[in-house]
Amino acid sequence: MALDFLKFTDENSVRVRATDLHRQVSAILRAVNVPGDHAETTAKILTKASLMAVDSHGVGNAVRYAESIESGQYTVPQKVDVISESDTTALLTCGDGLGFVAAHRAMEMSIEKAKAHGVGMATVRDGHHIGMVGYYPLMAIEQNMIGMAVTNASPAMRPALGAAPRLGTNPIAFGAPAGEERPFLLDMATTTVASGKLGLARRLGVPIPVGWAVTAEGQPLTHPPETRGEHWSQNPLGNTREQGAHKGYGLAVMVDILAGVLSGGGFGTQLTGGENMSWTMAIDISKFRPLDEFKSMMDEMIRELHATPAEPGEERVLVAGDPEWDAEEERSAKGVPLHNSQYDEMRACAQRLNAELFI
Amino acid sequence: MALDFLKFTDENSVRVRATDLHRQVSAILRAVNVPGDHAETTAKILTKASLMAVDSHGVGNAVRYAESIESGQYTVPQKVDVISESDTTALLTCGDGLGFVAAHRAMEMSIEKAKAHGVGMATVRDGHHIGMVGYYPLMAIEQNMIGMAVTNASPAMRPALGAAPRLGTNPIAFGAPAGEERPFLLDMATTTVASGKLGLARRLGVPIPVGWAVTAEGQPLTHPPETRGEHWSQNPLGNTREQGAHKGYGLAVMVDILAGVLSGGGFGTQLTGGENMSWTMAIDISKFRPLDEFKSMMDEMIRELHATPAEPGEERVLVAGDPEWDAEEERSAKGVPLHNSQYDEMRACAQRLNAELFI
Repeated sequence: MALDFLKFTDENSVRVRATDLHRQVSAILRAVNVPGDHAETTAKILTKASLMAVDSHGVGNAVRYAESIESGQYTVPQKVDVISESDTTALLTCGDGLGFVAAHRAMEMSIEKAKAHGVGMATVRDGHHIGMVGYYPLMAIEQNMIGMAVTNASPAMRPALGAAPRLGTNPIAFGAPAGEERPFLLDMATTTVASGKLGLARRLGVPIPVGWAVTAEGQPLTHPPETRGEHWSQNPLGNTREQGAHKGYGLAVMVDILAGVLSGGGFGTQLTGGENMSWTMAIDISKFRPLDEFKSMMDEMIRELHATPAEPGEERVLVAGDPEWDAEEERSAKGVPLHNSQYDEMRACAQRLNAELFI
Repeated sequence: MALDFLKFTDENSVRVRATDLHRQVSAILRAVNVPGDHAETTAKILTKASLMAVDSHGVGNAVRYAESIESGQYTVPQKVDVISESDTTALLTCGDGLGFVAAHRAMEMSIEKAKAHGVGMATVRDGHHIGMVGYYPLMAIEQNMIGMAVTNASPAMRPALGAAPRLGTNPIAFGAPAGEERPFLLDMATTTVASGKLGLARRLGVPIPVGWAVTAEGQPLTHPPETRGEHWSQNPLGNTREQGAHKGYGLAVMVDILAGVLSGGGFGTQLTGGENMSWTMAIDISKFRPLDEFKSMMDEMIRELHATPAEPGEERVLVAGDPEWDAEEERSAKGVPLHNSQYDEMRACAQRLNAELFI
């Protein structure tokens, strides 16, 4: 399987307890003047991503956020303000600071508004990276709600029929609670794969499958270049017109509209690397029908899907969220694996900043 | 291009004025006891689909709806009732009648609620086919709102890693208004292609591309069977695990949750052929930021996308909705082309039912 190169081994990684990772992230951020509550929110989200094996969006990123703060790309302390608000809607500014802080507040407000009125929705401008987008629907799920979140980014994806990048990998996350089964949690880039997978393949020197990226001439790229530019792009989900590339592309534009245009923060080509606008929504299920009936129908559906006969060569059919819930169970018990280089990098960063060492 | 077999020619089709098609559909439906307002709503939506060249969901379908009514599969006159309601949410029953009538009411209510509170959302149970899903976001666009709609169906799509159909083609439609440019309008099945394309290929006896459908053994099907069953499935958007099949599959489950589980009407495997639950949402843009600023940023984005260099062999980059707006312009001027067989079928149906002939 093409994704095997992502695996951790006892040789290339060390296991660290999630609580220690949380403390380490928080300490690194506080060392570059991030207020305590903002550092805690960011550490919570990054640690959850690491627990759920969304490693590209995990604790290791604390190092680059600290660097972005030191270089002045991020404003810290940031001021998260409400620019406009109604019964069910809010437009926030992230104050050019840590994206996590404003996106977290956006989902909190979405949930509050949904509790009061049925649905709540918020957009965030002047923002940066919000990490694992699936985290925000999880906040809604914990309140027995349906949650959705999207975030945009500077260009990486070509439009269908196009030869140059014009859209971010613009992920969509959607989640809903179940009863006895684990929640449904979809978290997907609208490109064939998230860009983190290309970065990792690059780092490990392994080729990527045909269909993930192309040159400006439309030729498949098995070794994508280091830097972004007009000379290559990631493919939208679907890859070719015949196989539905206009769908992945269309979904990416939907994300730009909700996160970038509705907020006024800007769409793909208006953003520089590291700028990300976002959008969250919460739906109070009990406003539609009794929650327990919803949850038991979710259970039935998830069981039906799990019971589907697998295609030849595959063990079983999964439901979105399964790999993440499995990972969280395993990593909560055994610790979170960090690649040796990432572990060293986090420690070096903490030491350089005179932050306390927890890992 | 694989889709060329869908083209109309002067030999295989006749052109009919949209107003006459509307009258003909309405007359056919009234002839099987559909109340006048319900017939008019259905005729309006079907005619719009035909104008926009979404022919698989166009006026020709009036014949099969009339047959479903005659056979008792549809209840007519239907009673569309509100089962539960809040400031921003509504659960409707379609009364087992024409899906169009309840989905149209659901989007009307979503728009009313969005006007009052910022966001409005409605789900519909006990429903049938709602036609071109993109029609409902268009209703929101006309009110300067963002619109979204989804609908589920009985199984046609296999889950990623699965070998048998468990989900409908579960389309997603999303639209937003622009200023000087035409609105953005995405309307996509979460399978590689809508099932209508397989039906047409079957009717014309032409093969379909590898990637659209597979046998239970995972082998590509170039001539998909007439009847649905465990022996073959459509692929989710993405096709293979490596190319993102879990994304198309995940989006299809999202649709089942919003349309089927939130409404209580049922998810894929609980539905029989012809049953469809649906969900609509409207977002009042002006609650977030001034409408004219939103629209001019939409214009900028659409122009940027159109200006993307095309991949080799392609003329230009499109934005979702372009083919439909182009078709509407052309067909409004020259009439809607109907395949000869469809034209004959509609006339024969009208004559059999003693409905007035308009085409």
